[in-house]
Amino acid sequence: MSESNQGTGLQLRSLVKTSGELELSLAKVPIPKPAADEILVRFEATPINPSDLGLLLGPADLSTAEVAGAGEDAVVTAKVPPQLMRVVAGRLDQSLPVGNEGAGVVVEAGSEAQGLVGKTVAILGGAMYAQYRTVKAADALVLHDDATPKDGASCFVNPLTALGMVETMRREGHTALAHTAAASNLGQMLVKICLQDGVELVNIVRSAAQAELLRGLGAKYICDSSGPGFTEDLIAALTATGATIAFDAIGGGKLAGQLLTGMEVAANQRSGGAYSRYGSTTFKQVYIYGGLDTGPTELNRAFGMQWGLGGWLLTNFILKIGPAEATKLRQRVADELKTTFASHYTAEISLVEALQPAVMAAYNRKTTGEKYLINPNKG
Amino acid sequence: MSESNQGTGLQLRSLVKTSGELELSLAKVPIPKPAADEILVRFEATPINPSDLGLLLGPADLSTAEVAGAGEDAVVTAKVPPQLMRVVAGRLDQSLPVGNEGAGVVVEAGSEAQGLVGKTVAILGGAMYAQYRTVKAADALVLHDDATPKDGASCFVNPLTALGMVETMRREGHTALAHTAAASNLGQMLVKICLQDGVELVNIVRSAAQAELLRGLGAKYICDSSGPGFTEDLIAALTATGATIAFDAIGGGKLAGQLLTGMEVAANQRSGGAYSRYGSTTFKQVYIYGGLDTGPTELNRAFGMQWGLGGWLLTNFILKIGPAEATKLRQRVADELKTTFASHYTAEISLVEALQPAVMAAYNRKTTGEKYLINPNKG
Repeated sequence: MSESNQGTGLQLRSLVKTSGELELSLAKVPIPKPAADEILVRFEATPINPSDLGLLLGPADLSTAEVAGAGEDAVVTAKVPPQLMRVVAGRLDQSLPVGNEGAGVVVEAGSEAQGLVGKTVAILGGAMYAQYRTVKAADALVLHDDATPKDGASCFVNPLTALGMVETMRREGHTALAHTAAASNLGQMLVKICLQDGVELVNIVRSAAQAELLRGLGAKYICDSSGPGFTEDLIAALTATGATIAFDAIGGGKLAGQLLTGMEVAANQRSGGAYSRYGSTTFKQVYIYGGLDTGPTELNRAFGMQWGLGGWLLTNFILKIGPAEATKLRQRVADELKTTFASHYTAEISLVEALQPAVMAAYNRKTTGEKYLINPNKG
Repeated sequence: MSESNQGTGLQLRSLVKTSGELELSLAKVPIPKPAADEILVRFEATPINPSDLGLLLGPADLSTAEVAGAGEDAVVTAKVPPQLMRVVAGRLDQSLPVGNEGAGVVVEAGSEAQGLVGKTVAILGGAMYAQYRTVKAADALVLHDDATPKDGASCFVNPLTALGMVETMRREGHTALAHTAAASNLGQMLVKICLQDGVELVNIVRSAAQAELLRGLGAKYICDSSGPGFTEDLIAALTATGATIAFDAIGGGKLAGQLLTGMEVAANQRSGGAYSRYGSTTFKQVYIYGGLDTGPTELNRAFGMQWGLGGWLLTNFILKIGPAEATKLRQRVADELKTTFASHYTAEISLVEALQPAVMAAYNRKTTGEKYLINPNKG
């Protein structure tokens, strides 16, 4: 890969300074000419996932955001509370590109990848909040001809996470699963996957409207944690399905523990076994894969001794299953892009808009079902 | 096994009534004659482990204890707080025998086990707080001739748990470990095992006196959580040893999370790796095997995504490794009974004394390093 005279493109950068400030800006970076096995992609659709926000905004307090300059030269700064600076110790004073995934059109290709010119492709990897990127052709997921960049923007993180949950369930010997923040884009995909695959799924949502949305997709077990009968509903659904693994996007608070307790009560009801003060012999697992609530996780441990709680990260899962299995999952995403894996966006914004404090506050709300899409080439 | 005319023996019983009361009493149970493959053991030493107290006392409030009757006919009652009755739902109105392990002398044997008469044996299983029990000869661990029942009373729970920790560390791919409440009888055994086996161990204790005790045994890494420099000491010890698995006897509070955070900081220091907001790639595990603090476990999740927390129970571990491996571990215990696996007791009490409220309060304190021994045949 060599730098060409093709000019420069905008790339969003996030910087946390030792002085305690987050700084977002748009760098003008050279557009490299693709090597023989590379392609140059003009990105038109890059989603802001919850998993992007940690790197993009860090622990900055957005209520302190200030803007200097305008347009492509705007620089936003916001204060990082001193007690949270420890969290970002590893990234201080480094101007970091952002954006886990995105899709665009191949505008130029090396000699070995000429067949891809004009194709719409999706890419996973950092630095996607940029107008152009040169990447290995082998890393591109080529979309079907009727798919737009917007269709393919969220090809990886949510679809592979949802597929990874069902695959993890199978590999670890469980037969049904539970999911929190279940009305999210990811949760909707999971509902469709489970219906297709005949896997029973307990959906935990936080409002009646979210329950209604999932019911419309055909979800069978929906428990609304804002309702008065939540605990009983949850136990009934866990007992009916036998779900002994859950994936939790919330992280903080008591929900992970409530899931383990509910599974334990369900296990005892299903087995009708004798009393043991060590609890049931059924192994129960909760994986925390998100942190919508960044507060502490609180477990009352009223679920015996056969339990596990842990972190779940897509990249680790992909490493664990290996490239052949990962390719199968990716192909399923491409094949079902407009059905199972269709994403919905609240708004499409430009790179310049992504640095406006009011817009930042909006995409940082992490409201279930809301998702913002950056079009780096939007004028 | 048939009931003989050999009379009866005392057996401690624990009963939680639907009315909300715990009731402890001494039942007079027939002494069964051993079948061909069985032995009759006169128990002389049965320890009160933390793992026995849950069944023995349940969640009763001992400050409400009252005694009716006297001597062998005494019945102690204590109130169970209404909000905790749910915890004991599975055992209501059942008079349950208690006592996980113990040792005694074989006083009679079936035709196939005559060689055991007069031997001192240790047994694992329930109902050990009893004067006599008839058990399968194959279940007895025959102690060396110079061992007393008191030497062998705690042959199983603590020794096998300590050995199980080191074995779990190896099987799950870790090379060093950490342990909390490390000055306990179990913790002292673990120190000796690790010194023998050349495994680095981080000991977390709660007082300077406990630190001194372990230093006397040759422990190298000791972190006192009551000291001002605890966090730094812990990180330094975890960094020096590379311990990425910990066994926690406390359960409640922040310690499990502090261990995960400390391991994460240590992993980053050892690798000097690039920043990732998903944390290090080092997998960190904490197993909770006790509940000295029955309060909630609180995790701040400042330790990336590569972590696991779970319950660890000796019986599950033994099932997992299988009978051949378990026999090896048991034999090591018998061989090193007076050295590595020596236990120390605060007091030796009779079954009648075990039902006296002042004594109950003492053995229920769960002070690290204090352990009570019941001698069911003490006059």
